[in-house]
Amino acid sequence: MAYITQNFAGLPAPVRIGLIGSGWMGAFHAESIARRVPGAVLSAIADPNVESAEALATALGTPKVTANAEDILADSEIDAVIIASPARFHSSLIAQAAAAGKHVFCEKPAGQGLDELDTALAAVEAAGVHFQIGFNRRYADDFQAAKKDLAEGVAGTPQLLRSLTRDPGTGSIPNAARVPAWTIFLETLIHDFDTLNWFNEGAEPVEVYAVADALVEPGLRDQGFLDTAVVTIRYSNGALAVAEANFSALYGYDIRGEVFGSKGMVQAGRATESAARRYTAEGLSAETPRLNIELFKQAYTDELADFAGAVRARRDGVPAPSSDFTLTPGGADARRALAVALACIDSVKQGGPVAVAGLAVLSALDDKAGV
Amino acid sequence: MAYITQNFAGLPAPVRIGLIGSGWMGAFHAESIARRVPGAVLSAIADPNVESAEALATALGTPKVTANAEDILADSEIDAVIIASPARFHSSLIAQAAAAGKHVFCEKPAGQGLDELDTALAAVEAAGVHFQIGFNRRYADDFQAAKKDLAEGVAGTPQLLRSLTRDPGTGSIPNAARVPAWTIFLETLIHDFDTLNWFNEGAEPVEVYAVADALVEPGLRDQGFLDTAVVTIRYSNGALAVAEANFSALYGYDIRGEVFGSKGMVQAGRATESAARRYTAEGLSAETPRLNIELFKQAYTDELADFAGAVRARRDGVPAPSSDFTLTPGGADARRALAVALACIDSVKQGGPVAVAGLAVLSALDDKAGV
Amino acid sequence: MAYITQNFAGLPAPVRIGLIGSGWMGAFHAESIARRVPGAVLSAIADPNVESAEALATALGTPKVTANAEDILADSEIDAVIIASPARFHSSLIAQAAAAGKHVFCEKPAGQGLDELDTALAAVEAAGVHFQIGFNRRYADDFQAAKKDLAEGVAGTPQLLRSLTRDPGTGSIPNAARVPAWTIFLETLIHDFDTLNWFNEGAEPVEVYAVADALVEPGLRDQGFLDTAVVTIRYSNGALAVAEANFSALYGYDIRGEVFGSKGMVQAGRATESAARRYTAEGLSAETPRLNIELFKQAYTDELADFAGAVRARRDGVPAPSSDFTLTPGGADARRALAVALACIDSVKQGGPVAVAGLAVLSALDDKAGV
Amino acid sequence: MAYITQNFAGLPAPVRIGLIGSGWMGAFHAESIARRVPGAVLSAIADPNVESAEALATALGTPKVTANAEDILADSEIDAVIIASPARFHSSLIAQAAAAGKHVFCEKPAGQGLDELDTALAAVEAAGVHFQIGFNRRYADDFQAAKKDLAEGVAGTPQLLRSLTRDPGTGSIPNAARVPAWTIFLETLIHDFDTLNWFNEGAEPVEVYAVADALVEPGLRDQGFLDTAVVTIRYSNGALAVAEANFSALYGYDIRGEVFGSKGMVQAGRATESAARRYTAEGLSAETPRLNIELFKQAYTDELADFAGAVRARRDGVPAPSSDFTLTPGGADARRALAVALACIDSVKQGGPVAVAGLAVLSALDDKAGV
Repeated sequence: MAYITQNFAGLPAPVRIGLIGSGWMGAFHAESIARRVPGAVLSAIADPNVESAEALATALGTPKVTANAEDILADSEIDAVIIASPARFHSSLIAQAAAAGKHVFCEKPAGQGLDELDTALAAVEAAGVHFQIGFNRRYADDFQAAKKDLAEGVAGTPQLLRSLTRDPGTGSIPNAARVPAWTIFLETLIHDFDTLNWFNEGAEPVEVYAVADALVEPGLRDQGFLDTAVVTIRYSNGALAVAEANFSALYGYDIRGEVFGSKGMVQAGRATESAARRYTAEGLSAETPRLNIELFKQAYTDELADFAGAVRARRDGVPAPSSDFTLTPGGADARRALAVALACIDSVKQGGPVAVAGLAVLSALDDKAGV
Repeated sequence: MAYITQNFAGLPAPVRIGLIGSGWMGAFHAESIARRVPGAVLSAIADPNVESAEALATALGTPKVTANAEDILADSEIDAVIIASPARFHSSLIAQAAAAGKHVFCEKPAGQGLDELDTALAAVEAAGVHFQIGFNRRYADDFQAAKKDLAEGVAGTPQLLRSLTRDPGTGSIPNAARVPAWTIFLETLIHDFDTLNWFNEGAEPVEVYAVADALVEPGLRDQGFLDTAVVTIRYSNGALAVAEANFSALYGYDIRGEVFGSKGMVQAGRATESAARRYTAEGLSAETPRLNIELFKQAYTDELADFAGAVRARRDGVPAPSSDFTLTPGGADARRALAVALACIDSVKQGGPVAVAGLAVLSALDDKAGV
Repeated sequence: MAYITQNFAGLPAPVRIGLIGSGWMGAFHAESIARRVPGAVLSAIADPNVESAEALATALGTPKVTANAEDILADSEIDAVIIASPARFHSSLIAQAAAAGKHVFCEKPAGQGLDELDTALAAVEAAGVHFQIGFNRRYADDFQAAKKDLAEGVAGTPQLLRSLTRDPGTGSIPNAARVPAWTIFLETLIHDFDTLNWFNEGAEPVEVYAVADALVEPGLRDQGFLDTAVVTIRYSNGALAVAEANFSALYGYDIRGEVFGSKGMVQAGRATESAARRYTAEGLSAETPRLNIELFKQAYTDELADFAGAVRARRDGVPAPSSDFTLTPGGADARRALAVALACIDSVKQGGPVAVAGLAVLSALDDKAGV
Repeated sequence: MAYITQNFAGLPAPVRIGLIGSGWMGAFHAESIARRVPGAVLSAIADPNVESAEALATALGTPKVTANAEDILADSEIDAVIIASPARFHSSLIAQAAAAGKHVFCEKPAGQGLDELDTALAAVEAAGVHFQIGFNRRYADDFQAAKKDLAEGVAGTPQLLRSLTRDPGTGSIPNAARVPAWTIFLETLIHDFDTLNWFNEGAEPVEVYAVADALVEPGLRDQGFLDTAVVTIRYSNGALAVAEANFSALYGYDIRGEVFGSKGMVQAGRATESAARRYTAEGLSAETPRLNIELFKQAYTDELADFAGAVRARRDGVPAPSSDFTLTPGGADARRALAVALACIDSVKQGGPVAVAGLAVLSALDDKAGV
């Protein structure tokens, strides 16, 4: 029996992708497209720092480099864009790319306010392009296995959920003074909010209570920089969720999810780097995951493969890849997670629980195919 | 080299213990004293349900049974009492027992209000008797190993803590209608509050935010019965803690603790009944712990052995057993956990965060030896 | 609902036990009987080292001490004996105790040759007394859970089995020169042989191939002292088993069992001291078990509780405790494991596989109730 | 700081690879080269079953298909070959490919006898081409982490080793009657022999004792088909190793390795498919790995990436990738594992331990760079 390579049978023209923003994350996505995602090619890189973009293009064999994202959006040879610029440009770039007819993969957050995001998503809808947000955690094998179990009812109706992110560190945050105060909610915990929303699919986040502090860098407390946070979310189905983050875990990159419900519990989260174990005079020991692009390398690759597959399906009018459970994070997911993050900021400011804004709009978004 | 039985060398007269309240927990403690705690004997049982008490006494060979706790308190042959009556009698029984010169082991909670508990603890202090509260989790081998690590600084300064209790169930709570509305805070989460306080030793719980609901038994929501809760606690050292409880875990008894700090993380909590594992066509499987007196049998025994040792030391003027880290939960611990539980009730009523009452008194209690 | 103490209802006279041999293991058993086994009392201690025996008796409150085992065997007040003398005296003491009408618990091995053991077991049979061998591993919670699964057919028909013992050490064996050359088979691996026989119940060990060496203490190779061994056993049902031992594991006491069969696999063996885990800059770490009487404390207690229960049942004519699966190791088990150990010695001497002796006798023994 | 794509900087011409044999494993390797190995292209496919080869070529975009391996060997555009034909052709194809100046990656076993393999390796040496054998397990993250630890001395001097392979199955082996009798040693356990040799680097396998049987398919015992085996290996440094295999594990693909030594133990082997866990009324459960190309997908990719990198280094005269520990399995490794497998066959035939042949030649091979 021959090994079946059905995924590649009758492979059509590759999906041509332009990268907007070639910083650390953008460059990693570029490498994924160029080296690890079958059926996609990296056609162009746009970055104001042209020198850096050119070095990347040389390394990856990318034919086109530009300082201006507009050059990519105007290129009729390009099917889709990956937006990996600083977050403050995300929503306007989404809107421009959609208007130019490009399918869009955007790093989180999709915007910094609900109004700007709604404008962007309206442009996506108007253009009929595919939109995907970079919630890569959905593509990690353990989170996906947990989601599959949840979709099959293994845990029953969710009652208690937990998601946490602890970024690797050394006990201090060298560039903390330059990090925006609310980053912990808008750029870090937004992953956890999506995980919780996804795991508790069908329910809406209704109310949020957030506490946060500068515990890693107490000296920055007065500037409002927050490195540690705990968030409680009440969902419309009664479920209670906790999200938790910290910017400096000495043991590395710690990402976990847990859903407890009427039938049981499912958990995701990898405690160790591999299955290898050591037993010495000091007892048991094992390596822990140290970096997001190591722990989630497969997830980062798979989210882009999913994106490329969806773009190809749209472009060529073929069926998109399907899954037994909800997988691809789209516009409604981006907005729902952002709404929770923004509510957290309000909650910290007010010192009490606050309602999550814009639920009516969220429900409407969910009903729209393609968003 | 002979095995050294130093624990028993020159064993003096056994500690004579009277049990007040022979319900499920009291009877289990009685059996522990009679069968599993060297150096202690069960001398008497008091319970209004004399028939039940007599059956227990017969089974265990206990010489004396009475309907009235006063008979035990008046018995000069008895060194100490175990109070396992309903919680509403705890503080007054503590006060009476102390006044009668008996050393006291009391099941949690030590009282239902801070005033009544303060009165009881004042009686304990006035009488100079030993007081211990039934926070058995401190004696579980994994929680104790975690505490030892914390005492050695393995996790550094605590920043994020978590403790949870999920009681075993079948998806409903047969006797829920008869359970007091606030039980989840006063009798269940109080264990978690103590664990968090103990793990974050040296800091005080300052502010509490609690959300709770009837998710297992939604039909009882209108009566105010709560079966699911999440609590956020801010500590005086900035640490943020989450406690979580649910009354019906289909997979059994789930107790966990976690401390994340500036140097790392320690975790406690046993996911499976034993180290045995099965691999079949369905994948990996293993038994989970089903009952508190199974999971914590050793802990329940050890807390009473600790109590008996302390009583003996007081009675005979010998040194009490010592530990590398804080172990025995006393009056200040009972009060601190109760203060958090009461603040949770306020928080649920008010729908927002509330300050934990009585910190000044707490700090004073901590300074008093013997309490 | 009151906690049910049915185990103690109508408790009859305690089982009176005499200890023969108060060395390290004997003293630990003495403490177990005196302090941890309900319904049993330690009535006497016999040891040529009377001083040591007296110290133990004083510590435990044992009323009688003697230099001669005969004094215990002649004592009509004593129901049963625990034999914990050096192994070379075991079989003759078993025979004498049986002849005196005492029920017998004997530490492994029950003898050093099949002839002497057969004589002893014949005496046991003739006297109609209860006999139990100290294969404590059967009472460890994980090995028992694995056995229960096997009895329920979880693994199907066994095809591959593994059992290992690694004793804690520091990389050398201080008293190695005084340890008999074949100890690794007769006193250490005999536990593994019993585990394998028990896990593969219904089949007989047919052929053995053993390799062994002095790898911890190469300097003692010339004296024939062996500290490392691997044994392959062929069973009558075709199953292939491996037993493995080493005398110096720097990480502590490592005991594991595994059965792979037509339906799946079951595993037993505890890798860590407790469920506590640490995560630091060095990664994950946890404590490992360091001592047999710590790892197997419950197992050592339970095997004696089982013995006491069986003795009481015989003495008082009441039903013995029952189990869903074969538990108590008796004479046939002692002999079967010894036969494998002796075959290993032959195999090492001959440098090839050898048949396991005396199978016909083994099968006959299995059919005899009470042995 | 930009993400550094140093692996691709200044990327030269890709390595052009020809595949010989497009069966199940060959087709998977083809897909890996075409889709997952940066810097390599699949230039041609040779297979007597041209139709199947053409389907694969179409799916992967491979430009050239032929029925004859000679067409690939004669193609001056091709740098290297992957040999994935049936094992009986391996050694002669290695020799021919080497003679044609092609670098060679060959699936295991490299030959079926030591003479034919020696001839092939002599041709490799004479031609100065790079040779790699498909011991993919060396590239699995956990085995590699274990090897790294061993290289750093974590376990000290090896004393006891274990490696096992259990292939997934359903309790029967549908095509068993067509599988060669000695497959379990020559094609399955040869992986384990390499793992043991690699883990015990520096020592030679000296003596082997193998037992094997038809336990999954007892009906084929008379035909000599063996589906279950246990092998004991004595190494020149005294270490004792056990390798174990079975062709039908109902729970999936079970691959483990363990080294115990004078300083401790390291273990490799992944028990579950991902870190996801389920807790339900039945207890804990998790998915197990079901297929080699799933469990070892990364390992299969990485071994070819290693090969492509080495070929490029040879071709372009640049430094080959380096590692802190021995990684790439070459000719001496192929021969050493084969020598053990052949000794196992002898051992089964003779019913006793046998010496491993050809050690002198092995040591000579180890000294030759490039082999």
